[in-house]
Amino acid sequence: MGDNHAPVTVIGLGLMGQALAAAFLKAGHRTTVWNRSAEKAEKLVSEGAVLAATPAEAVAASELLVVCVSTYDNLDGILDGLDEALKGKVLVNLTSGSSDQARVAAERFGKLGVKYLDGVIMITPPGIGAETSVLFYAGDEEVFEAHKSTLGLLGGGTTYLGADYAMPALYDVSLLGLMWGTFNAFLHGVAVVGTADVSAKTYLPWAHMWLDAIKMFTTDYANQIDAGDGEFPANDATLETHLEALKHLVHESEALGVDAELPKYSQNLMEKIIGQGHAKNSYAAMIKAFQKPQA
Amino acid sequence: MGDNHAPVTVIGLGLMGQALAAAFLKAGHRTTVWNRSAEKAEKLVSEGAVLAATPAEAVAASELLVVCVSTYDNLDGILDGLDEALKGKVLVNLTSGSSDQARVAAERFGKLGVKYLDGVIMITPPGIGAETSVLFYAGDEEVFEAHKSTLGLLGGGTTYLGADYAMPALYDVSLLGLMWGTFNAFLHGVAVVGTADVSAKTYLPWAHMWLDAIKMFTTDYANQIDAGDGEFPANDATLETHLEALKHLVHESEALGVDAELPKYSQNLMEKIIGQGHAKNSYAAMIKAFQKPQA
Ligand SMILES: NC(=O)c1ccc[n+]([C@@H]2O[C@H](COP(=O)([O-])OP(=O)(O)OC[C@H]3O[C@@H](n4cnc5c(N)ncnc54)[C@H](OP(=O)(O)O)[C@@H]3O)[C@@H](O)[C@H]2O)c1
Ligand SMILES: NC(=O)c1ccc[n+]([C@@H]2O[C@H](COP(=O)([O-])OP(=O)(O)OC[C@H]3O[C@@H](n4cnc5c(N)ncnc54)[C@H](OP(=O)(O)O)[C@@H]3O)[C@@H](O)[C@H]2O)c1
Repeated sequence: MGDNHAPVTVIGLGLMGQALAAAFLKAGHRTTVWNRSAEKAEKLVSEGAVLAATPAEAVAASELLVVCVSTYDNLDGILDGLDEALKGKVLVNLTSGSSDQARVAAERFGKLGVKYLDGVIMITPPGIGAETSVLFYAGDEEVFEAHKSTLGLLGGGTTYLGADYAMPALYDVSLLGLMWGTFNAFLHGVAVVGTADVSAKTYLPWAHMWLDAIKMFTTDYANQIDAGDGEFPANDATLETHLEALKHLVHESEALGVDAELPKYSQNLMEKIIGQGHAKNSYAAMIKAFQKPQA
Repeated sequence: MGDNHAPVTVIGLGLMGQALAAAFLKAGHRTTVWNRSAEKAEKLVSEGAVLAATPAEAVAASELLVVCVSTYDNLDGILDGLDEALKGKVLVNLTSGSSDQARVAAERFGKLGVKYLDGVIMITPPGIGAETSVLFYAGDEEVFEAHKSTLGLLGGGTTYLGADYAMPALYDVSLLGLMWGTFNAFLHGVAVVGTADVSAKTYLPWAHMWLDAIKMFTTDYANQIDAGDGEFPANDATLETHLEALKHLVHESEALGVDAELPKYSQNLMEKIIGQGHAKNSYAAMIKAFQKPQA
């Protein structure tokens, strides 16, 4: 446990699983791998990985088992019939899922005497091993601490979120949602300036500069939301001013033939919250459009 | 022209106009101001500004006129009857509007012999004068160059976009759209993790770290869009993989009582583009959901 070259088993060699196994190998761990389609192990084997013939062999090879497959159901399928062999093992599940799936898995493996950690990976495969790459974990703190240095090989931002198994999935979907929302708005803007023959590459540095300003604004909003006093002071701009400018975007999109559904969604939302008396508040008041209504 | 302390007139002393006038004053320009509600000039006058009694006086006082009011209509109202007085003046309009409003104004003032620049301000009033603050301008390049050093006092990122008067408004609404899209997704995420008692301030640094990763992803997407070959290689993740993860966010939102309209909007969009044959492409293929359909 915790020693620098302890054996590791990686189950699932998709794009992500291959990157995980490569990181352990590179650091000198004896790395056993298994994948449904064995050919995906070829490159890793040529680099020194041991290919297990069956999931049972893969489980037997190491105390630390890292799994990364498409779904939680895949995981159940792979480990089916191995309850006895899993007893006492450390099972680190890096498969994406929802918080209830993580809780169900943790309970089931817990009952089997498995030391279960649930994790999520906030980076694409090429980022595995980088200093800035973040992976979130939850589960028993002692188990995490014992394997922290090995798991830390996957990213410098390896972070323990606590005992609540729901947390990695909640951070994961929240941050991914931030990504899709930002992506969509970015692409919408590329389409708008694109009508005037501005290339995406020309627009890009301005979008990046503006994302830095957006970070600043959200810092103020986070404070306002946590204050919980419903004040939302408009230190930058009022919702009313936002709405006025947003109407220009809707108009501009429609006039230029760019899809206007996204700004119209924002318009509906702002009008709803302004209608609740927040015209003179900051954008932070829009949290009310998302939060579960208070009972 | 272009001399360091040339007189400047600022018309409109709302939150933004006051910041603009203060920046000119601070740099030693003789600054004349006018506002419909004269009391908003008090602080500036105590700092050395000259209060004009009428718009006519304000126009007469300087060759360089900077206007920042709520709407283009306000501007027309203020300058009504001053056609003769405006001849030969440099009119810099920093009022927000749409690209067609900017074009109409440029044409009208051009006919009057006014040197017209249209501009937009990509920062809130406290950011006026800062090295990183961006303002975009369009109009006659010689006119811009002649007043660049004075206008540059408003922000280190003072940028000329060319002769096409539509450009500042297009950049403005595009970048603001990026902001609202990012804000909404950020607030949605705050609401999701908030159900597990994670404060907005705890979530904030992860959101910021993730926005940096998002910048990286968009750099690749910008290149893919500009390539224009419809290839959209999935160097990070396929749209199919995105959709799978997105469904977790929809499910999670619904299960937690957080408003699910935003992720559902993204889901519809992804399913539409996947339905057009882009399942194995990167997120950059989603540009097709926004661009004006090719005729
Ligand atoms: N790629 C990313 O950028 C990224 C980032 C963060 C998180 N993740 C998460 O990491 C996980 C894996 O992603 P990936 O990119 O590696 O996906 P992938 O390349 O599509 O690989 C999927 C893996 O799951 C296995 N699998 C699928 N169905 C199976 C089944 N019924 N039985 C056994 N094995 C099965 C595949 O085996 P075969 O090779 O035999 O098909 C393969 O090993 C997902 O949960 C994903 O959300 C990915
Ligand atoms: N605040 C920001 O963060 C920000 C950022 C970028 C761009 N902008 C743009 O800057 C412009 C001004 O914004 P602001 O924040 O200064 O707004 P504001 O504080 O609401 O001020 C509005 C200004 O417009 C004048 N005005 C409104 N209606 C008028 C009318 N009918 N006749 C004459 N004057 C009239 C007001 O005069 P009174 O004082 O007499 O009402 C005041 O000077 C807007 O186009 C806004 O979109 C603002």
